[in-house]
Amino acid sequence: MTEQPTTAPDSASTQSDEQQTVEEELVARVAASFAGTADPRLRQLMQSLVKYLHGFIREVRLTEAEWNTAITFLTECGHITDDTRQEFVLLSDVLGASMQTIAVNNQAYQGATEATVFGPFFVDDAPEIPCGGDIAGGATGQPCWIEGTVTDTDGRPVAGARIEVWECDEDGYYDVQYDDHRIAGRAHLFSDDNGWYRFWGLTPVPYPIPHDGPVGRMLEATGRSPVRAAHLHFMVSAPHQRTLVTHIFVAGDPQIDIGDSVFGVKDSLITRFDQQPAGTPTPDGRDLTGRSWARADFAIVLAPEGA
Amino acid sequence: MTEQPTTAPDSASTQSDEQQTVEEELVARVAASFAGTADPRLRQLMQSLVKYLHGFIREVRLTEAEWNTAITFLTECGHITDDTRQEFVLLSDVLGASMQTIAVNNQAYQGATEATVFGPFFVDDAPEIPCGGDIAGGATGQPCWIEGTVTDTDGRPVAGARIEVWECDEDGYYDVQYDDHRIAGRAHLFSDDNGWYRFWGLTPVPYPIPHDGPVGRMLEATGRSPVRAAHLHFMVSAPHQRTLVTHIFVAGDPQIDIGDSVFGVKDSLITRFDQQPAGTPTPDGRDLTGRSWARADFAIVLAPEGA
Repeated sequence: MTEQPTTAPDSASTQSDEQQTVEEELVARVAASFAGTADPRLRQLMQSLVKYLHGFIREVRLTEAEWNTAITFLTECGHITDDTRQEFVLLSDVLGASMQTIAVNNQAYQGATEATVFGPFFVDDAPEIPCGGDIAGGATGQPCWIEGTVTDTDGRPVAGARIEVWECDEDGYYDVQYDDHRIAGRAHLFSDDNGWYRFWGLTPVPYPIPHDGPVGRMLEATGRSPVRAAHLHFMVSAPHQRTLVTHIFVAGDPQIDIGDSVFGVKDSLITRFDQQPAGTPTPDGRDLTGRSWARADFAIVLAPEGA
Repeated sequence: MTEQPTTAPDSASTQSDEQQTVEEELVARVAASFAGTADPRLRQLMQSLVKYLHGFIREVRLTEAEWNTAITFLTECGHITDDTRQEFVLLSDVLGASMQTIAVNNQAYQGATEATVFGPFFVDDAPEIPCGGDIAGGATGQPCWIEGTVTDTDGRPVAGARIEVWECDEDGYYDVQYDDHRIAGRAHLFSDDNGWYRFWGLTPVPYPIPHDGPVGRMLEATGRSPVRAAHLHFMVSAPHQRTLVTHIFVAGDPQIDIGDSVFGVKDSLITRFDQQPAGTPTPDGRDLTGRSWARADFAIVLAPEGA
């Protein structure tokens, strides 16, 4: 591990031999209780979980009061979670566990575009738009033209790749966070025969993750910002290619330096969004009378399936 | 660790250097995000948690499907938890985390009685009984006379120690698991001037922890028994002594060998419960016409406060 958290002076390794034996025998007994698990993968998961969970308790010498606080915290996370609010996903996100799972499952492959967190705001049935269409659907914000290629890692264009895109509005809310069942700021399109894609979206803005619950209170107690760096979500899939779940981030967004609250930023995903003064002609002749707009290029490189 | 769980062939240490660097940098970045935590203990807890949580994900190479299963599992634990059902405590119990926390906070001290799990069934306001009284309060089961001394680790009697005792009925249920607000199978009493205590309870029986929820399904999937070894709970407190939370277990109970589902058994807590045929005179002259009964001696030795 690059950076070892400070070990407390009273951590497990400084206990008496007798005490260490008591604690180690308990770990062994709990791990052994899973020895009869029929599914070998489940057995591995449970025994590893036991090892790391007990390792944590022993290293920090968890007090009974702290254990109680943890139980209460998990209970509160469970009680605020419903069909539209997922506090355990937020918890996983702010602990970097979501991003680590992404890292483990989406290893770097040659020049393929890097993956990042999926987030809780994707929906399955976003409308289809043609290449060059507008995903806004009434969501407010600065119009933004986004275009690029979809290729494989040998540089060959990938025609007909399905590109799902979704983002928040200028107030920092996704459509599903409103009560009125609107569908806005999301769509899917397909790359053309030359592997090109292009669409109108909105220039991304930073927004806080929902922070009125236990995870928000944890961030506050630890002096952390709940704000996510501005981004636009992509999920790109094509036959024989590894599905790519990623974002593009906005170069110059100060939240990138403050720290994205879910650790999603990767340097390769930071993209220039070039501001265009009002009156600048648009690529498709769209009339934006009197409004500024932005444009970004994002080249998508898909790894082969199974890479 | 006495017994290392099997390490999968594709665990973190067998990844490419590049991949290991990606994963380690993420761990360091997440740990660093907690560097500004004002409370140094909270900072230590969070940074250690990050280290062990990411260690688990990296060792098992957690898949995205498994991550989803974990989120769903925690959500189900949260949704079944209410004022009388605490699934997160059950989860902590069956993973041995409760018992490890007890071990860390109640280190062996000379001849002091060992501690074990508190469990979810204690209530604060159990009735007082005199020495020699009956805790049953209508709970059914074989009558059992329990007596012993309360001393400090120098063998001096501790007079006036507050002794809370609670247990399930012969059907395996605590009073609070019934809907009728009964108070039964629980009471508190005080040791007498010579440090002696004695009371009528019920001979303990094995019972399953509540296993109709996600924790029960996890036990089933891993081939584990939900049954707790038969036991009677004690909590003993006295000025200048460390409060003792423990059980006595019944020598010969087969569940001790099968495995207590929450890992609470310690050899020193296994106690002989001697069966007395119907007609055997009782210590206090109680008339148990035609019924067998049992008796057990349990000497309680309290460690000094702060030990």
